[in-house]
Amino acid sequence: MLSKQTLYKKQAGEYAATLIEDNMVVGLGTGSTVRFFIEMLAKRINTEGLNIVGVTTSSKTSALAKSLGIKLSSVDEVPYIDITIDGADEVDLNFNGIKGGGAALLFEKIVALNAHKNIWIIDESKYHDVIGQFPLPVEVVPYGSYQLLKRFEEADLNPSFRRTATGSRLTTDVDNYIIDLSLEQIDHPKSLAYFLEQIIGVVEHGLFLNIVDEVIIGGEQLKIITK
Amino acid sequence: MLSKQTLYKKQAGEYAATLIEDNMVVGLGTGSTVRFFIEMLAKRINTEGLNIVGVTTSSKTSALAKSLGIKLSSVDEVPYIDITIDGADEVDLNFNGIKGGGAALLFEKIVALNAHKNIWIIDESKYHDVIGQFPLPVEVVPYGSYQLLKRFEEADLNPSFRRTATGSRLTTDVDNYIIDLSLEQIDHPKSLAYFLEQIIGVVEHGLFLNIVDEVIIGGEQLKIITK
Repeated sequence: MLSKQTLYKKQAGEYAATLIEDNMVVGLGTGSTVRFFIEMLAKRINTEGLNIVGVTTSSKTSALAKSLGIKLSSVDEVPYIDITIDGADEVDLNFNGIKGGGAALLFEKIVALNAHKNIWIIDESKYHDVIGQFPLPVEVVPYGSYQLLKRFEEADLNPSFRRTATGSRLTTDVDNYIIDLSLEQIDHPKSLAYFLEQIIGVVEHGLFLNIVDEVIIGGEQLKIITK
Repeated sequence: MLSKQTLYKKQAGEYAATLIEDNMVVGLGTGSTVRFFIEMLAKRINTEGLNIVGVTTSSKTSALAKSLGIKLSSVDEVPYIDITIDGADEVDLNFNGIKGGGAALLFEKIVALNAHKNIWIIDESKYHDVIGQFPLPVEVVPYGSYQLLKRFEEADLNPSFRRTATGSRLTTDVDNYIIDLSLEQIDHPKSLAYFLEQIIGVVEHGLFLNIVDEVIIGGEQLKIITK
């Protein structure tokens, strides 16, 4: 038996797969909700004979898509991406999002940037008035990262290195670290994004502002919110 | 016989070595001018028995310093760096600099950020009214970098991937690419820095603004310019 949350993820993910049309270049996000999308997309490719090229956002998604027989390309080998379907860890009423729970925020942002349309699929537990309950992931260069952590502490940003199950610092697909900022509530996401972008050693942050075009929310009833 | 430029580099580098005091943690830059500094510093350590810990900015400098017997530490293992001596590719009258000709700009910036005092050593050919004659290096994430190059082209920034002698794209110490922007003249370095920092896929850029405290310029006469 799937939990309610898992059912809602499945609902959003499988609905998103119906939006894909023949001959599209499709950005493939990362995470448990996206997995349902990718599995359903693979089914459609096999049964309907769709000609789809996927552009992935992580080594995990690449492995999953390959195992399901989806053709893949790099973001640099396609002219552009028609549509990207990705998850989000938290989304607010103004289409601001936090991403990076799966540590793939850098490639997710790069793929989103090169997509004509970005759709996020979430379950209803992730849709909030204001973002910030989910700790904000910041991808940082390992060299100097302890000094950076101290700087974040001084700025009262409640930082902590993300760790693996065995307690060592988690490394991303391109060997950076993730520092999570436990902020509870982000009242001014734009200012925070600007602040973080200027900091030496920050490669990218998990604030996705002005990126998404449509949010598909799984719940008792499926909701689709368009910007 | 050393060329005039090399003599000036040597003059600036060797002078900088006289500024190092016992028990200092010293940031060690990268490049041909810094090499003279490091060689003279090693001499002083050996002859005067100075207790110095070096924090390096590149694998090249680490190798050089180790070969000369200088004790090394990581930027994350020292409380702070007392003084960093680094080169620069171009410096203007307002203490703005372009760095990254040696592809070490990322670690150079991280080390500079953690230093109480930053000194640049250059020969006089690098001191200009306005920076921009030297192509501005931008360190970028490889994934999506071709799309980024196209975006820089559209913005008339004259970008090109830096390449190795064999023609492949040069990779930095942390496996990023360098895109050089041939701008000729940078009238508004702050705005350009802000523009570049916001771009997804840019890890760091070679504009060093508000970083240096003192510039030592080798020439017919040694000049020292303090902010």
